[in-house]
Amino acid sequence: MLSLKQAQNIINEELNRLSLPSDPTNLYEPIRYILSNGGKRIRPALVLMAASIFTEEYHKALSPAIGIEIFHNFTLLHDDLMDASDIRRGNKTVHKKWNPNISILSGDVMSILAYRSVSEVDDKHLKAVLSIFHRTAIEVCEGQMMDLDFELRDHVGIEEYLKMIELKTSVLIAASLQIGAISAGSDYALSKSLYDFGLNLGIAFQLQDDLLDSFGDSITFGKQIGSDIINNKKTFLMISLLELADENDKKQLQYLLSQKDANPENKIKKVLELFDNYKIKELTEKKIDHYFLKTANILSSISISGDNKRMLSEFSNQLMKRSY
Amino acid sequence: MLSLKQAQNIINEELNRLSLPSDPTNLYEPIRYILSNGGKRIRPALVLMAASIFTEEYHKALSPAIGIEIFHNFTLLHDDLMDASDIRRGNKTVHKKWNPNISILSGDVMSILAYRSVSEVDDKHLKAVLSIFHRTAIEVCEGQMMDLDFELRDHVGIEEYLKMIELKTSVLIAASLQIGAISAGSDYALSKSLYDFGLNLGIAFQLQDDLLDSFGDSITFGKQIGSDIINNKKTFLMISLLELADENDKKQLQYLLSQKDANPENKIKKVLELFDNYKIKELTEKKIDHYFLKTANILSSISISGDNKRMLSEFSNQLMKRSY
Repeated sequence: MLSLKQAQNIINEELNRLSLPSDPTNLYEPIRYILSNGGKRIRPALVLMAASIFTEEYHKALSPAIGIEIFHNFTLLHDDLMDASDIRRGNKTVHKKWNPNISILSGDVMSILAYRSVSEVDDKHLKAVLSIFHRTAIEVCEGQMMDLDFELRDHVGIEEYLKMIELKTSVLIAASLQIGAISAGSDYALSKSLYDFGLNLGIAFQLQDDLLDSFGDSITFGKQIGSDIINNKKTFLMISLLELADENDKKQLQYLLSQKDANPENKIKKVLELFDNYKIKELTEKKIDHYFLKTANILSSISISGDNKRMLSEFSNQLMKRSY
Repeated sequence: MLSLKQAQNIINEELNRLSLPSDPTNLYEPIRYILSNGGKRIRPALVLMAASIFTEEYHKALSPAIGIEIFHNFTLLHDDLMDASDIRRGNKTVHKKWNPNISILSGDVMSILAYRSVSEVDDKHLKAVLSIFHRTAIEVCEGQMMDLDFELRDHVGIEEYLKMIELKTSVLIAASLQIGAISAGSDYALSKSLYDFGLNLGIAFQLQDDLLDSFGDSITFGKQIGSDIINNKKTFLMISLLELADENDKKQLQYLLSQKDANPENKIKKVLELFDNYKIKELTEKKIDHYFLKTANILSSISISGDNKRMLSEFSNQLMKRSY
């Protein structure tokens, strides 16, 4: 099967070849902009990698791979607008560089373009591929709605937080593997195992994202350390701390969260101290291990070659080490 | 074939049966709200009517019909947000009743739900139906982008205005007929003729919408007369007047358009006077007749029964008389 690197290269070449109309400029220029704005192409690479397990003609999965990358970028575009984020991957977000209406409408057309590309599979696989894509796309929107809802709520439970990241992040990673497998002729049961592998890996990845924001190295992580803390994000770490903290520490924490003009460094320092007191780092690592172990168990039970298993296992490690 | 009335009834019954998840409430409640907010169901009715020309099993086109109605309402939801419209069909728009983020995200999921329903056709027609739907959905977004662009421009030409309404309004009416025909087993050439019939009818309908805003009867029209004039909308009438007016009248007109706090009744009166002076009503009626005549010509050349031709012709008349 293809390595991540090989798959990424094929995807980037195909994205460079992608031809969009020039008019209306305000509709298509933002799409070219966001699609050329870096990104690791993990999801479309997974589509190709999964397809390459089942066929040498993995290019048959190239269109759905591109479709999934377009869909992912569509969700980023609208999420950035909803979250009022000004910067993505070091560049202005579309609603900042253009305006909110252009962000809405360019996103809308991207979601259609995504469907068009995803539909370009062999006739005999079209219904199955679409059925996975419909469900996944709906779930991603449900996850984003839960995320927006959580911001306005005082209390969020661990279980519903895990459900939210499963929907918002993991199902698309899972579906990428399954759609790649199905478009390459895999039987359904095997494609579903790959889906489950991706689902658990996606949750582990997102939990690690939460962890690295507080305990990571800003260079490997590629983001500012502590930004979740500054923004009062209800991450796995913060939700766990709120559940475990005693009355005094909870009060101190809620005071820190309520202060609008708190000194950022001081706030980060104090929250990290609380994380340490309640062993939140270890707790989170344990949870990550739980999901990562699941991916390994699923992998061991799938009927694919040992080589393919090793490649998928290597991919998991690359993803978790952020070395892609 | 089904009459408009019969088709509308089937659609309304099906929409009442439509089952959406309850959670997340903020995602699905706005969808239930906008889908139950009246509307004439013209597009889905056309899907069924076209299907009923080719088969007694027109229920095979029911899912794509519902899909097209969901898509249409998705565009209304996002358009209302982009146009900052507070009221739709006498009720608060979604971004007013909830908020802009909920409007964006509910719209996003509606576009996916639309695709899911449109995809529920016989396997052998799926690729053809999707291909029409992809193109049409993209064109509707292009039309809306042109409309937004026009608002910020000083000059808009007649031809590009006609292109804009073709994309924003007519292609979905046209595609409704074609998708209905294709899902019922029509050959492609005949379905394309029905598309062309719908395309010209849609343009005639939209031009008449422009006309009725200035010269209609507010009860038949169902909207406030003169609202386009008050909002400086670049309608067919206004664009034509700007092209025909002499220097003096053009200056007067531009003065009227530039005044932010003009007395509405006075502004409407003066613009209507200018419309009269340049026979804009007659000019618009002539243009409407041009497109309406095209629909009649297409109809006469299609190889369907005389009865079916009479039914489609009756539908055109109902649409143009707003008696549906």
